Parts: sequence; C-alpha cells; structure tokens
Amino acid sequence: RTALDFDENWFDDAEYARLRRRMPIPYVNAIPVRVGETGNVERIGLLLRSLEDGTLGREVVGGRIRFHETIRTALVRHAENDLGPMALPVIPPAISPFHIAEYFPTEGSALLHDPRQHAIAMCFIMEVRGECTPRADALSLDWLTPEETMRPDIVGELCYGQDHILRIALAHLGFRV
Amino acid sequence: RTALDFDENWFDDAEYARLRRRMPIPYVNAIPVRVGETGNVERIGLLLRSLEDGTLGREVVGGRIRFHETIRTALVRHAENDLGPMALPVIPPAISPFHIAEYFPTEGSALLHDPRQHAIAMCFIMEVRGECTPRADALSLDWLTPEETMRPDIVGELCYGQDHILRIALAHLGFRV
Amino acid sequence: RTALDFDENWFDDAEYARLRRRMPIPYVNAIPVRVGETGNVERIGLLLRSLEDGTLGREVVGGRIRFHETIRTALVRHAENDLGPMALPVIPPAISPFHIAEYFPTEGSALLHDPRQHAIAMCFIMEVRGECTPRADALSLDWLTPEETMRPDIVGELCYGQDHILRIALAHLGFRV
Amino acid sequence: RTALDFDENWFDDAEYARLRRRMPIPYVNAIPVRVGETGNVERIGLLLRSLEDGTLGREVVGGRIRFHETIRTALVRHAENDLGPMALPVIPPAISPFHIAEYFPTEGSALLHDPRQHAIAMCFIMEVRGECTPRADALSLDWLTPEETMRPDIVGELCYGQDHILRIALAHLGFRV
Repeated sequence: RTALDFDENWFDDAEYARLRRRMPIPYVNAIPVRVGETGNVERIGLLLRSLEDGTLGREVVGGRIRFHETIRTALVRHAENDLGPMALPVIPPAISPFHIAEYFPTEGSALLHDPRQHAIAMCFIMEVRGECTPRADALSLDWLTPEETMRPDIVGELCYGQDHILRIALAHLGFRV
Repeated sequence: RTALDFDENWFDDAEYARLRRRMPIPYVNAIPVRVGETGNVERIGLLLRSLEDGTLGREVVGGRIRFHETIRTALVRHAENDLGPMALPVIPPAISPFHIAEYFPTEGSALLHDPRQHAIAMCFIMEVRGECTPRADALSLDWLTPEETMRPDIVGELCYGQDHILRIALAHLGFRV
Repeated sequence: RTALDFDENWFDDAEYARLRRRMPIPYVNAIPVRVGETGNVERIGLLLRSLEDGTLGREVVGGRIRFHETIRTALVRHAENDLGPMALPVIPPAISPFHIAEYFPTEGSALLHDPRQHAIAMCFIMEVRGECTPRADALSLDWLTPEETMRPDIVGELCYGQDHILRIALAHLGFRV
Repeated sequence: RTALDFDENWFDDAEYARLRRRMPIPYVNAIPVRVGETGNVERIGLLLRSLEDGTLGREVVGGRIRFHETIRTALVRHAENDLGPMALPVIPPAISPFHIAEYFPTEGSALLHDPRQHAIAMCFIMEVRGECTPRADALSLDWLTPEETMRPDIVGELCYGQDHILRIALAHLGFRV
C-alpha cells in the first residue's frame, strides 16, 4: 500500500494487482509547494514512507483516478489523502498538466519505473496554503528548498524515478536543475 | 467496434466491456490536418463510420493506449489503423497534448459522453502528409475546411460530443469558433 | 488610455505611440474567475470601460510587460491595476499560459485586432478570491456566468476580438462554446 | 551581431540598441532535433558562433519577432536564417511553446542572462528533416546526442544560460537531465 495506489474498495487486492499488469492506469501526480510573499516557490514537499522492503522512500503526492472521477476531483482527493484535510491545496480552475509522466513496469525501459504497473500520470504543481498532516502510510512530509530536493541523498530516496518529474517541475518554476 | 476501441486481442470482448465500466481508460485522440504552403491548416479530417444503431457518425482519430505502450506509439498505431499505412503522420518529438478530454459514461454529466466507458484522452493535432485510406470500420475520411467542421449537420454527426474537442483545436489553430 | 496600455512613465505618450507601430509589444491577458465550493468556475469577470469613441466596451484584465519585469510581476501588477488592491488574485507558481494571443493592427488580418499595436499576449485564467474594485478607467467589473459571456450583446461589446480568447478559456474550463 | 538579433533593416543599430534597453523584446527560440525511424530524438543541433569578445559560443536557433509578423512566420524565418534554406523544419500547425524563457540584462537576476536586452522567448522543439547549412555568423551547426549536450564543456559554451532551456527540452523529450 503506497501513495501511488490505495483507497480501492471495489476491486479486491488480487484482482487489482492482476488488472494493472494488463492495462495502463491513469494517475495524477502533484508536487506540493509553499510560496513566499512575492509569489516565488520557497519549499517543495516530499512524502517520506516506509517501503515494503523495509527501507525509506520519498514520493510526490498522487494516486490513481477512479472510475467516473474527474481529474480535478482526483487531485483534491489525493491531496487530502496524502496531506490531510487542512492542507488547503490550490487547484487551478483549468486542468493543464505541466507534464505527462509514463511509468513502465519493466526496469530500464524508461526513466520512470513502477514495478507494479504501467501508469500514465498527469503531473501538476500544487500550491498548498494550510497545515499538512501526512497520514496513514506516510511517516512525514518534509518541506525542502528547491536546491535541497536535488541533493544526491534526497534523489536517491525518491521512488519510481520521480526525480525526473521533480527536475521538470523545478525547471518550469525557474530553478536551475 | 469503433475508432475509440479496437485491436484488442488479450482481453476477450466481454471481459473488456466489464473492465471499462469499472476503470478509467487512457486514450489518445488526434485531429488529422492538412497544411498549406505557408503552414496554415487548410483541411481537417473526420472519419465517417456506420454506428451500431445503423446511423452514420463522425469521429476524430483515436483509441486506447495499450499496456506497456508509450503515448507516442499509441498515436502512431491509431493513425495507421484509422488512416492507413501511407498516411505519413507527423508526430511531434515531445508529447504535449493541447487538451485532456474526459469522456464519462453517464449522459449529461459532461460535455463528452461515451456510453461504453470513462475515457481520459490526451488530444493532439496531427499533420498528415501522405495518402489516407480509411480502413475496416470507417466508410470514409472526409477533409473539411475548418469552417465546414462547424456546420450544424457535421456537428450533429460527431460522436461522443467530439465537437467540443474540435472547437478547442480550431481555437488553438487560430480559427473562429 | 485603456487596460491594454497604461502606467507608462518612462516613455512619453507620443514616443510610445510611435514605438508600438514598429515593434511587437509583449502583453499579459488574464481572465478573472470566481470558483465555487467544488472548484468549478461559476463567474467570469469582464471590465466595462468607456472607449475613446464614446461607446462602451468590455475587456479582460491585461497590459504590457515592462522592461525588466517578470511575467509573474506583470500579472500581479495588472491584476491590481484593473481589479484593485484587495482582489487577492491567485497566480500559479509556474507560469504557463493557456494560449498565446497575437493582436495585429491591420483590421481583418487576424481574429484579434488592436488598432494601436501588434501585441503578443500570454493568456492566463486567474482565480480571484478577494473584493474587486475596478479603478480609474473602468466603469465596472461585471461577474457573468460562463454562458452569459457568450451572449451576442456581450460578445458585441468585447474589444479587440477578445471573445476569441474567452472561447478558448471557456473550452479549457470545460464549458460549451 | 548574434543569432538572437539580426536582420534589422528598419531600425538603425544605435536606435535598436537603445530601444532594447527600455522595452522587453519578444523572441522565438527553437531547438533543432533529428528524429530516428521510431520517432525518438537522436540528435540536437547547436550553433557555434564566434562571439564579440573573440571566444566561441553555442546557441539554439532564434531571434526576435518582427512587427506584424506571426510567431509561426518568425519561427520559419529564423530557422532559415540560422539553418539555411534547405533545412525543411517541421513547424507544428498549432503554436504551443514548451516554455516561455525570460532573459534579463542584469547578471545574476535570473537563469537566463542577455546583456543586450530583456527578451521574452517562446521556446519550441523543431524537428529538421533537410540539410542544414549554417550561415553568415555561424561557424557550424553541430549535431550532438542528447547526452552530449549536457557535457560540461558544451554547457560551458552555451550562451545566455541557454543550458536551462535545453534541460527543460531534454526533460520533455524524455531524457535524463
């Protein structure tokens, strides 16, 4: 159970595990940011989780889009799931991902690798204005400066090759990558 | 069997029909265009099909993304499926949809309605330089001027509310909608 | 003096009038929106001005980008100029226009026509959370439903062909145009 | 005289030099790419020029947008100016920059720095299908692999901080940066 897949109640685990070996799964990914007085991004939020193999890993906010759910609703739901009910995320009125990330289950076939599935994630930068209280499967949410997110130890902890998504986000935000 | 779903061989029809009532299905949609000497769009291609209820309907190019298939490969495959092997589509080096279309199976819940499924379609404008020979389930590919695509009789034949996608495309291309 | 050009203090009027007959002028355009509880756009703000010829005209928020000013700063400045200091606009952390509008001074050469200049406007949708108090050269800011903005009398009052920009915005926001 | 500014004939040099210290200048930037059989980007083209200070520098294709010129026409014109008349660039039917680059004349105030001006450049990836013959002020056009463009010696030769634009382009194209 990770941030990339949860809150299923209409597929049992075994059925869903089979399914996502056979069909691409639509996802949303969101990079939480804190913005300063002048509107510039000061901090980037990364979730810290304990992984199935006992190690720690970092992830951006995200998860799958449910049947009959809009992308907007999925963004709001995953923001609440991962950041808590008081996070006050700012979801832009028009849905316009800064990147479409393709995660493949075969290692080495792409920059993004998710052994469980082929996921197609629409990626957003998400300003957060409230208090974040990471939940359930997250140990913490750490607010790093943009520069800190590129430190080798942080990049080394990022799951699924999400440093690739982070780099595109940083570049769009005007930071050196 | 329509342009929005075909060439399945690893799900049987019944299984796939059930699946897409339970999960959102990632799609590509592509609007074929012919470009003049000066680079301006002169014609827009719409597929004409005979629908299950015996009437005729029009559609843009498209279909689902397969498991372990990149968006780029899906675009190339559906272009070939719908336009024939000599269409010579121009697929841009970087995948950047001009719109993300959300089709819902419940009528009236959104502008785009597909009774078979909840589809999330990345939409592209696709220049075509070769000869198009619509195949199998398409009766013809008609090249219309941008203005003609907005004629009430044409809009009335467009399936799934795809006139909405067409309008966004026309607006991006600089035409009045 | 209109929303598309003002607060100059380092060019005198005559000099600036000449300049913008010779060089394209970078602009920002922003469509103010009010969002409901569920995040959906409920109202769109249009400025009403009295034009040089004595008639009334409507416009979206906007104006030119100053020398050494970032696009973000220009957006904030024009939001304040046109909507007042308490408008609380939400400027997304990453600058990503939904459209690049090209206004040409020659009538009939393009959908957008500005007799004063060739302007290249980066277009944004801008959520507004505070109180708007239109200033100086604006008579009012009217909050219309998305449907109302497409009424022929409203479209007829829109300056410079900005109904074209509005249509693209509406389509992106998921409204029928 | 560099790729970022040339072919002026209606401003004399002194007048234009003054102007661009007072107004932001709209630009296009284009990164030429060669694409393989399967559509993947194999090479990226960088222009090599001799700079005013006698050293060598690299640049992407680009230049300013003229008065009454569309962005599309500016792209075609600068592609021909920088790559020669047989380059056969593929300009997408809809103009949709992958990034808006802001160059400031004050060193250290932004990632992109152009001592001559404040330029606002719409950035495109441009497939090139023909023969390139760099002209006039370019010594050569070198086709590098995506990885090679990030070599420290190449990055060190890139003018104006354009490695920043290149990184965003590479990330969009699916390469590690």
